[in-house]
Amino acid sequence: MVRHFIDTNDFTKQEILDIIRLGLTLKKCINVGYYPPLLKNKTLGMIFEQTSTRTRVSFETAMAQLGGHAQYLAPGQIQFGVHETLGDTGKVLSRLVDILVARVHRHQTIVDLANSCNIPVINGMSDYNHPTQEIGDVTTMVEHLPPGKRLEDCKVVFVGDATQVCASLCFITTKLGMHFVQFGPKSHQLKEHHRTIAEANCKVSGGSYLITDDADEAMKDADFVYTDVWYGLYDAELSQEERMAIFYPKYQVNRELMAKASPHAKFMHCLPATRGEEITNEVLDAPYSIAWDQAGNRLTAMRAILVYLLRPQESQQSKIDAAKAELDQVLADIM
Amino acid sequence: MVRHFIDTNDFTKQEILDIIRLGLTLKKCINVGYYPPLLKNKTLGMIFEQTSTRTRVSFETAMAQLGGHAQYLAPGQIQFGVHETLGDTGKVLSRLVDILVARVHRHQTIVDLANSCNIPVINGMSDYNHPTQEIGDVTTMVEHLPPGKRLEDCKVVFVGDATQVCASLCFITTKLGMHFVQFGPKSHQLKEHHRTIAEANCKVSGGSYLITDDADEAMKDADFVYTDVWYGLYDAELSQEERMAIFYPKYQVNRELMAKASPHAKFMHCLPATRGEEITNEVLDAPYSIAWDQAGNRLTAMRAILVYLLRPQESQQSKIDAAKAELDQVLADIM
Amino acid sequence: MVRHFIDTNDFTKQEILDIIRLGLTLKKCINVGYYPPLLKNKTLGMIFEQTSTRTRVSFETAMAQLGGHAQYLAPGQIQFGVHETLGDTGKVLSRLVDILVARVHRHQTIVDLANSCNIPVINGMSDYNHPTQEIGDVTTMVEHLPPGKRLEDCKVVFVGDATQVCASLCFITTKLGMHFVQFGPKSHQLKEHHRTIAEANCKVSGGSYLITDDADEAMKDADFVYTDVWYGLYDAELSQEERMAIFYPKYQVNRELMAKASPHAKFMHCLPATRGEEITNEVLDAPYSIAWDQAGNRLTAMRAILVYLLRPQESQQSKIDAAKAELDQVLADIM
Repeated sequence: MVRHFIDTNDFTKQEILDIIRLGLTLKKCINVGYYPPLLKNKTLGMIFEQTSTRTRVSFETAMAQLGGHAQYLAPGQIQFGVHETLGDTGKVLSRLVDILVARVHRHQTIVDLANSCNIPVINGMSDYNHPTQEIGDVTTMVEHLPPGKRLEDCKVVFVGDATQVCASLCFITTKLGMHFVQFGPKSHQLKEHHRTIAEANCKVSGGSYLITDDADEAMKDADFVYTDVWYGLYDAELSQEERMAIFYPKYQVNRELMAKASPHAKFMHCLPATRGEEITNEVLDAPYSIAWDQAGNRLTAMRAILVYLLRPQESQQSKIDAAKAELDQVLADIM
Repeated sequence: MVRHFIDTNDFTKQEILDIIRLGLTLKKCINVGYYPPLLKNKTLGMIFEQTSTRTRVSFETAMAQLGGHAQYLAPGQIQFGVHETLGDTGKVLSRLVDILVARVHRHQTIVDLANSCNIPVINGMSDYNHPTQEIGDVTTMVEHLPPGKRLEDCKVVFVGDATQVCASLCFITTKLGMHFVQFGPKSHQLKEHHRTIAEANCKVSGGSYLITDDADEAMKDADFVYTDVWYGLYDAELSQEERMAIFYPKYQVNRELMAKASPHAKFMHCLPATRGEEITNEVLDAPYSIAWDQAGNRLTAMRAILVYLLRPQESQQSKIDAAKAELDQVLADIM
Repeated sequence: MVRHFIDTNDFTKQEILDIIRLGLTLKKCINVGYYPPLLKNKTLGMIFEQTSTRTRVSFETAMAQLGGHAQYLAPGQIQFGVHETLGDTGKVLSRLVDILVARVHRHQTIVDLANSCNIPVINGMSDYNHPTQEIGDVTTMVEHLPPGKRLEDCKVVFVGDATQVCASLCFITTKLGMHFVQFGPKSHQLKEHHRTIAEANCKVSGGSYLITDDADEAMKDADFVYTDVWYGLYDAELSQEERMAIFYPKYQVNRELMAKASPHAKFMHCLPATRGEEITNEVLDAPYSIAWDQAGNRLTAMRAILVYLLRPQESQQSKIDAAKAELDQVLADIM
């Protein structure tokens, strides 16, 4: 049965670690100038209901580097459910490309799309989660582990609004047995349904989670401090005045807040950043900011997810030889 | 002289059968994992005056699978005749890409573009016809021939509005010696100029055509039943109320209508489908519906048309060696 | 340090001649069917703040022909300085692609982008200059040198408005020791800051420049006559009435004006052309019009600039072998 990449909660801890290991290995290959052609002749369809820089560019580069091709279907070029049902679109695209990624407004859209496709479908962010971001984020943590610590020893603190990136960070850290904290105002904290998942994850993994508006409790011994913008979801954006009233100054990641974390703490941001709101220049541009490495690891994540889902298949040489002979005959006959 | 693909009536029956055979052979190759690099280093420019899913995606995938590259020029990115004459655009693009496809509002645009280009130009649908659709459609019929029948024995019934897809189906079936019927209301039947072409085609091929609003006469012994949407051309779309008044319920392809056809009849649709209007769920999702295979054969058709028009050329090894030696010298000198 | 391509004035005469030589050699290779894979696995990001035909298509084709891939980021898909600072966008893109081109409204944008990137950045036209056009233009002159003349012997006359193409032509011709003239109305002549650069260039190269509204003086012995549209910059377009009042008929390139030039003079235009305004059909379609070759040499220029900036690096085989072995192990373990 075809495997989709909609939610990391559909994968085991071991599978997620495998994907991360695959990504780090592919990165090493490309860094020394070896581009493994694992996706040769494969085509990725990229459907975006919203514009995107990092997700789109990193998918397109990943396909090209591994020998494949990505088609960008910009907002408006495919409108799910307008001229035909979503199910019909999925059935057709399954015959025209090898794998799909979609960035969607509503999570149900990506679920329905996957259900109608018999090719792998990747969630390129929905209003619920952002699983490719998760893989890149943990990859970056692996590259920047505090001295002497394993992933399972790390405390990861997300500061601010309970965005889909916050939810995603909660999912993957608890899945992997890490220690997750959201430090945010009561009105903008992860919801009951998120807690249920975190709870279940921790029970299996031995991880922990905490959702609090207490800065000292949240930041104590933090290994990774992570934040995201304050303006909320595309279709219900908060004005600058509204968001500043809610989050500023308590939830801004600045030097004072970082001082409450572990002395070796690293700073992360999914980007884009609104400098002066959720983050100060001083922190984003600090030596302990790994936000740029993290952005680069979007590409690391995409390569790994694509190779993992497409799992290069062996072809039978005898069948290839027969097909090639037939083609040569046809070309000779008609041209 | 360069050969364009504007209208299948510009090709002989044998040439069309050659293209279909080429497509089926390339499909077989790719299905067993052999991707013949027949379009290696070639670039297709794709100009769309209207958005498109199937046509655009299948062209882009076809180029990638055969080793080439397709550039998508979305609606508005090249505006024919706005900043320069169409002829000038054609002359320039002929020097920057190897082959062009254009989806245009008015058929005359694609004709004029082809006249100004000295590279092959493909009609990706106009208000007059849809020839790449034709190749995919007949390919699908070849794959689903009724037991014991040849193409020339088949009756193909198009139900509904005289769209460009209907006209195209009429052209290719009569060209190939098949038996074509349009079953549609008098106000929306193929016109005199279509009949003239069908007449001429049948005279050469031994095929037949019939345009009627009599359901029993139309459907009797039909091997393939085909329909298309009722809303008409982009720039003169009928409202749902208008189109239902014209076509519903008489011209809906439902179980009752299919019961009038041959018991082994297959159902076809160029898609997208408006379920509940021209087609019922029951028929579109039936085992005898080959609409999804037909959608997949858009890709089969594009591969064949591209390879047929670009006819891979032999390069002279001695010239290549000389050019390569000169390049190596330049690189050594300047880098 | 990474080298950008923002302004040909940042390069020496010899470097520019090297790039042109490289382009002509790559053109020869491709014309005989040899596509050197010098950009294999490399990805170009193309950011356009304005639409473009020639620049975009020629970059995308150049990458494909040389084994790489170009991503088109259409107007609106990346908005510099909107969701994040330009500097942050540059830092991120430097990690996701290998090289960037941007067509920008304001020249300062491309300068700032280059400063924030540690990958090469190419100026795909700004309101100040159009350096990739320059390379294609001189390449075309090299291919059409008057009998017995070297580049340094040639007089190049730009007729009309002091567009960024006019400025660019002034820069590269004076840099290369050629003889540049702008023939245009006093209100639309190159400005003091352009003259300063031309002056400095001529001092080094031995070239000359002249800016005049005297037709006879301008056109006398001209080897190349060049023009551009009259409607000015995108954000301050002149109406047809305004521009005709300024430039017509004195600055139209027609048979009468061409008669004042050298008998072997060639006509050039960066295109698109507004036939009947700055240029007549008679001249644009004349045998001495090399505007179409010039358009084709946009591609010649892009290939050369891309290869020159990316300077293919040697990889160490031992490192590749080690990375490959590690990847094989990972794939065996997890798949």
